[in-house]
Formats: sequence, structure tokens, C-alpha cells
Amino acid sequence: MCDQREGDHRPEMPSRRDVLKGSLALAASPLLVGVASSAYAAQTSEPVGTGPTSARAYGALKANSPLESMQIKRRAVGPNDVLLDVLYCGICHSDIHHAHDEWNPIVPTAFPCVPGHEIIGRVQAVGSAVTKFKVGDIGGVGCMVDSCGTCENCLDDREQYCLKGSTVTYNGRDTVLGGHTFGGYSDKVVVTERFVIRIPPGADLAATAPLLCAGITTFSPMQHWKVAAGQRVGVIGLGGLGHVAVKLAVSRRADVTVFTTSPSKIADAKRLGATNAVLWSDSAAMKQLANKFDYLISTVPQAYPMQQFIDVLKLDATLVNVGALDALQGVSGGGLIFGRKSIAGSAIGGIAETQEVIDYCAARNIKADIELIRVEDINRAYDRVVDKDVRYRFVIDMASLKVAGTTRS
Amino acid sequence: MCDQREGDHRPEMPSRRDVLKGSLALAASPLLVGVASSAYAAQTSEPVGTGPTSARAYGALKANSPLESMQIKRRAVGPNDVLLDVLYCGICHSDIHHAHDEWNPIVPTAFPCVPGHEIIGRVQAVGSAVTKFKVGDIGGVGCMVDSCGTCENCLDDREQYCLKGSTVTYNGRDTVLGGHTFGGYSDKVVVTERFVIRIPPGADLAATAPLLCAGITTFSPMQHWKVAAGQRVGVIGLGGLGHVAVKLAVSRRADVTVFTTSPSKIADAKRLGATNAVLWSDSAAMKQLANKFDYLISTVPQAYPMQQFIDVLKLDATLVNVGALDALQGVSGGGLIFGRKSIAGSAIGGIAETQEVIDYCAARNIKADIELIRVEDINRAYDRVVDKDVRYRFVIDMASLKVAGTTRS
Repeated sequence: MCDQREGDHRPEMPSRRDVLKGSLALAASPLLVGVASSAYAAQTSEPVGTGPTSARAYGALKANSPLESMQIKRRAVGPNDVLLDVLYCGICHSDIHHAHDEWNPIVPTAFPCVPGHEIIGRVQAVGSAVTKFKVGDIGGVGCMVDSCGTCENCLDDREQYCLKGSTVTYNGRDTVLGGHTFGGYSDKVVVTERFVIRIPPGADLAATAPLLCAGITTFSPMQHWKVAAGQRVGVIGLGGLGHVAVKLAVSRRADVTVFTTSPSKIADAKRLGATNAVLWSDSAAMKQLANKFDYLISTVPQAYPMQQFIDVLKLDATLVNVGALDALQGVSGGGLIFGRKSIAGSAIGGIAETQEVIDYCAARNIKADIELIRVEDINRAYDRVVDKDVRYRFVIDMASLKVAGTTRS
Repeated sequence: MCDQREGDHRPEMPSRRDVLKGSLALAASPLLVGVASSAYAAQTSEPVGTGPTSARAYGALKANSPLESMQIKRRAVGPNDVLLDVLYCGICHSDIHHAHDEWNPIVPTAFPCVPGHEIIGRVQAVGSAVTKFKVGDIGGVGCMVDSCGTCENCLDDREQYCLKGSTVTYNGRDTVLGGHTFGGYSDKVVVTERFVIRIPPGADLAATAPLLCAGITTFSPMQHWKVAAGQRVGVIGLGGLGHVAVKLAVSRRADVTVFTTSPSKIADAKRLGATNAVLWSDSAAMKQLANKFDYLISTVPQAYPMQQFIDVLKLDATLVNVGALDALQGVSGGGLIFGRKSIAGSAIGGIAETQEVIDYCAARNIKADIELIRVEDINRAYDRVVDKDVRYRFVIDMASLKVAGTTRS
């Protein structure tokens, strides 16, 4: 199922003795293996192994094949690692792009592909040097699971721009096991604690999962470009990212306009707090907005004719694209020149900033609007995302994977 | 020759009596008409008329026809106007785009087209309310000759971004005479004093003319994006704008790299003060520069594959396009996203900033490298600009037009 894992000859299923040996060897850890407790009680009282392990996952064997159940390997829990029992994982549009290899050649997909980078899990085991988590805590994992930690960007809390390339949660280079990384459509994941986000007590876990990608991806550029109270802010595209962007911009007391292609989303935009919502096919409405916006964030996950949005920017204002990786369409040099306008890109956010958006949202009860699904519904959910038929994020209840009966290590 | 002027029934050649009447009516002006003096002595001692007048010009009757001698009208000198006897006019690549109607449909050309927006002239007459100039002074006119003066951008010294649209020096809407404006390939021009730049004494007039477009167009974005000592700055394209950009960036003690397509310009780039010069066709050299630049200014006057330059920008850095009006080519959304990079545009500069660059350059002996030509050489010069065969700006010596024998008003 997962050929590139077969070169790894460490035992997939460690014996009880191996687990105990591991725990003795890593005595610095106060609670290396244990039974989950607190509000998020584990469904089993068996001790949790820390060796390399088999995990159950949902993934694609090749581009455009449906996602299906498969076994993957997870690495042994190293001194700085956290083993998470995955509770929830959001479905991001980029999961679909990857599973369908749609970003090739910019980002080709390695198969099998197990997507998922909006992961909420319960800590099942921690390495000996872990200080940030204990067993039973709730942790979150977003789009990255590692980075060099030494380049100027990493040292400046911008791991997403690591000059050596951060390790993305799936379809990245797995520097421990070799091959490529597997994401959160899985019952467990092992991640170095530096890349695990603390989830505040009382958070709505399923609805917080999407904040680990959709939240940070829209929060980070608003911080960088200093979106402020009273500014006129446009959100282009009202989907998973867009609806969170609206909530975040409204929380900053910006005057928010949503640009959508879906008449059915006009009312939703206002319910979410937008002052105004515009069908961008309405060229008369677009013309009336010329030179009005301080900031635009484009969350549309593919290229589209962008000049009409450059036209609504004010002097010196910026359109930040966080969704489309492909070539920009229809942007005229003159359109930028006459108004000293900019188009920029922004990628997720650093780990400290991801912690910040999670804490910011928890303090303000900002969460994603979600539809909770079972793993076997992923393919149908993918179709519905492509059809823009989701309000506004699918989140997989990973208990449904476990119920399906995988052996746990 | 110039049909849209024929609807104007004011006398073309005012009588001596009209001139005197004008001078009496506008008694507030200390020197309404007069004889030029100082180092820039007029070639005639006849009093200069202030009524509407005929002017000799060089222009294109239609797209792609060669430029030829023609008569145009200039408006009467109003209370706030300055009449300049044009001494020099630079040839900007945008003159060629306009004369050939190459920016249609973004900026269609109205014919006949008399280009020229790098104008240096001697003041021949001033209106009654003019305070900034007296007869005999040297004035410069760049790319604009008017703006609304009341919008937020005009009030903020950014007339180039006038919300009602500034009046460009040629091919703009002539709000006084009707029709469209005519540029500096002409023996005289009448411009409101607010849009006439003071040229410091001792300036090399012919080599200063290009600073009124090439200078301000590259100076203004360096001010806006705060190009500073020690920064690594790239100048894309070594032509009229590019060679001034190099001089300006070097004067700010930036570490300048020139990107060119012409092997013959490598040595020139270094002579101009650049630390480095790279043929951008050399993909290995380009790769070595990945993520190195704090700022890039693109002076190339048409679109070209731009992603290779996005790749050499540092995190958070900006490529500012000041040359190409057409659609951006080959810029991937992902290329901007992975590094929070920006592409921006910038148009010339405001009038105060144009005065600033003229004063800045005069104080530092920064001027354009020019080749002085006669009016009858304009068409050949155009061909040479298109062939990149100019080091680095053609400037028309307008005395050559006068020698050709036009009646002066």
C-alpha cells in the first residue's frame, strides 16, 4: 500500500517489552507512555507504544483515484516528539489539489497521498525531552511538521519560509523515515513538539481544526499588512478560508465586503458579519467600487481574472493572494502602475503565529462553520467542495476511522 | 494638420495691441511679457505674445507613420501659466509606444500625436498670477501638465494618482482647448506653473531633461519603498530609465546588480556604479541569486517572463514594475506565496517629488547619459531605441526645429 515505507525494517508493531525498554531508556520524560485522561478520555486503557507503528489512513493511490483506506507507518516517538491520537481533521481545498495532482509541476504529488493538515488530536505519548505537552493534552498540527530551525527565517518565527524548505505535513520530504510525509487523514501522527500547537481548554475541537490552515492563512497576512479598524477590506471567495477571513476581519472591526460567484452566499456573507457582498460578475457593481479598498485577500484556490480586483484597490493598497498557486491571470502592468498597487502572496504563518491565531480565536469564540463527516464520506465531500457546496468546511470525525477496526499499536 | 484645433476661433497670431491689452489687464504680473536674459538668452529680442499661438512641432499623423513636421496650437498664457521656449526634449520609450499606438487599448493614442514629456525650456512669458518663474528662468515639464488639485491624492502631492485623472503632457484630454494635449517635440509649450519644475542654475540642461521622466519614475519608488544603504537592489533593463535607476540606487549606497539582455551593456553597468551585472538568459547565474534581493525595479518597457525575478527576491521583498503596461507574464501565485513577495507598479511621481529629484540630482551631479540629436533624426532615433542601440537617452536639441524656420508668434 505504501511501498516507500517498506525499506524501513524497524518492527511495525513493537512488543510490550520494546515499549517498556523505550520507556526506561527515556527516563527523563515524566510520562512517556500513559493513559489519556481529562475531558478528552482515550477510548482504550492499553499503554501506548512509542516505537515505529502502523497507522490507518485514508489516501489516494494515484491522481484522480478515489481516496481509500490504507496502512501507513508512523515513526517512533523521538525525544522531542508527540504522538497524537487524531480526533478531527479538516478538508482543505489544497488536499484536493494534492490528491488530484493538480499543482504539478509547481508542487507535484507523491503517491500514495494521505492529505490533511488541519489536525486536532489527543496526546497519547511524548518523548523524553518534551516539555510543552503531557499525555491527555490536546494538540493541533497545521501545514508544517518541521523546518531547519537555524536559518534567519526560522530564527525569526517564520518557519513557513524556511530557507531550506519547511517539511509540510503531507507530501513533504520525510527526513526521518525517508519518502514523503503523510497527513492527518489518519488515526495517529507523530510530530516534533515545536510544531504542535496547544489547544486552549474548552475549545470546540472539530470547529477549531480548520483554524490550523484556513485560520492562520488568513490571519497572518492581516497581521503583516496591519488590517485595522475602519479599513475597507474585501474577501474574495467565500469558502473555507474566505469565511474565516470574514470573521477575522470583522473581529478587527474592518468594514468587510465579500466578493463571491454564488448568489446563495450573499446572505451568508452578511450573517458572518460582512457589511456588503457583491457578485463579482456584476460589472456595474464592481465599477462602483473602484479605488475603494484598503486591502483585499483572495482565497480562491485557482487563478481567475484578477484585474477587476486590482481596480477596486485604493492607492498603495495590496491584494494578497493566499489561494491560487498557478499563474496570475489578466493582471496588467498598467493596472498596478496607475495607483501604485501591489499583488502579494502569503503562505500560512509561523508556529508562534499559529499559536497566536488559535488563542485569538478561542478568546473570541471564533471558529469555523463546519459539517462533520465520516471517513467514508471523504470522496463525496471532495466533490461537494469542488462544487462549492459546503458551508464552509468539512471536518472528518476520525473516530469513524477507528470504528472501522484498525489494529492499534 | 491638426483638425481638432480648428474649432478654436481665437486669433492665432495676436496683434501687438492685443498683447499690450493683455499686459495691462494682467497688471499684477511684474513681467508679463519680456525679453529673455541670463545665460539662456533668447534668440530674438521681439516681445513675446501671450495669446493663443501657433507652434511648430514634430509628430505622427497616424500609428506607425514616421514623425513629421506639423503646426499645432498652444493656448493663450492664462494668469497661472508659463510659456516655455522649448530647448531640449528627451525621447522616452513611451513616446514610441504612443506614436505607434502600441498601448491601445490600455491607453489608445489620439492622432496627430506630438510626443515628448522630458521638456526643458526657457520662460518666455508668465501669467499675471505666476510667482514661481520670471521670464528668462529655466523650467522643466515632465509627464503631467495638470490635475484636479482637490482630490485627496492631489492634496497629498501625488498628482500622478489624481482620482479624476491627471492631464498628461501629451495624448491627454486638453481641458482648455479641447481635443488632446501635445508634448514637447515642439518649439513652445504653455503649462500652468504648478506643473513646471524649477531647474537649478548650472544644471546641464540637455542631460537633465530625461530626469523629468526617467529620473522621477525611478526615484519615486525608491523613496516609497525606502531603498537604503547596503540593500541589495536589482535594476532590470539598462536603458533610459535603467541607467538613471542605477545612478540613483548607487547614490543611495545600495549594492546594485543590473539585469540585462545585452552582453555589450555588462561593462557599462559597472561603469555606472553597479557591483554586478547579469545576463538574465544565464539561468545558472540567476539561480545563484535566489532569495538575495531586497528590491527590484523593472524598467523594461514591455512584458517579459517575470517569475525568474520573483525568485531572486528575498522574503517580503518587492519587484516594482515601472515600464510595462501590458499583462504580466508568467508570474505564478505560488511564486509570490512562498516568500510573501510582492509585485507592484509605480507611476512617475508627484510634482513636489519631481522637484526633489531634480534638486537631488543637481546637488550630486547626477544626469542622464545622452546623445543629442536634431529633430529630423527622430525617426532614426526611434528605430535605434527599439533596437536597444542608445547609450542611454536621445535628447532632441530643439534649436534644430527653430532653425528649420517656423514663424514665431
